[in-house]
Amino acid sequence: MQTKGLIHIYTGQGKGKTTSAVGLAIRAIGHGLKVCYIYFHKDPKKWDYGEHRILEKLEVAVFGFAEKHPHFYKNISNDEIRRECLKGLEFVKKIYQENKYDILILDEIIISLRDGFLTEKEVMDILDSKPENLELILTGRGATDAIIKKVDLVSRIEKIKHPYDSGIQRRKGIEY
Amino acid sequence: MQTKGLIHIYTGQGKGKTTSAVGLAIRAIGHGLKVCYIYFHKDPKKWDYGEHRILEKLEVAVFGFAEKHPHFYKNISNDEIRRECLKGLEFVKKIYQENKYDILILDEIIISLRDGFLTEKEVMDILDSKPENLELILTGRGATDAIIKKVDLVSRIEKIKHPYDSGIQRRKGIEY
Repeated sequence: MQTKGLIHIYTGQGKGKTTSAVGLAIRAIGHGLKVCYIYFHKDPKKWDYGEHRILEKLEVAVFGFAEKHPHFYKNISNDEIRRECLKGLEFVKKIYQENKYDILILDEIIISLRDGFLTEKEVMDILDSKPENLELILTGRGATDAIIKKVDLVSRIEKIKHPYDSGIQRRKGIEY
Repeated sequence: MQTKGLIHIYTGQGKGKTTSAVGLAIRAIGHGLKVCYIYFHKDPKKWDYGEHRILEKLEVAVFGFAEKHPHFYKNISNDEIRRECLKGLEFVKKIYQENKYDILILDEIIISLRDGFLTEKEVMDILDSKPENLELILTGRGATDAIIKKVDLVSRIEKIKHPYDSGIQRRKGIEY
């Protein structure tokens, strides 16, 4: 990157947070930048995420943590999820040290914060310790005021209309 | 597509409209769906859009209309842009007839409407005549109430913060 890397957040109730981050990855790859994509609270064994397959094909490094969310898996304890999220943060710090990517996406990490698996201080520490040249992209509903204040770019995706509200189910290729 | 195709709009002042559409294209390609991406009011000779290169590499059909917007090119008349936009709509109807894509993205077409190059009736006609199975994605600031009422999914991307406001210029790999 030619300039200092910034921090973006895509938050809000509407559709378009993960896809924005994925689209940004695609734009960056088109200019030869190196991208790492880490997702939280998404279970590719349950939902076959089409975007993961293409990101990998394009040589984006794809990793997942805390794949099972208690909302969907009743036999998973909150402590277990917290431990998984903390492992994710340790992994992010390793990525920081390796310093081989231009863009790092932490997809749905704001959910870890919203649902109490990570503290605001733990997430803030990840923002504070970012290597200067890295562009850091966070997604998920529930960004706090302190996080919004800290970062450079915040888009809040408002749900004006969503087909789920008309009873339409998740569709392959559109919602995952 | 297994179900009836829906119509999405990504509108609002914040960053994430085009990237959402591109991310959705990537997700769809990951499930073997066929995607056509048509952009309006974007000049790839002026800005080297990284996402176009990758979409083409992934065998997305990429087309552009009305590439020069009078905001950037003072010697282009509004009439000329309107003619280009109408050519775009004719092309969309051709795509409808061919019926070989699962997803059609009309990137920034809402700008054509907002800036008066297309009428609401002309855009509405494109929505009304969509083949049943096609998923249609429109982006751009300035969606009207009638258009919002008509479609199935609307995400309004609110700009909470954007680095342009701090004087940071467009950055390759991030803004184009």
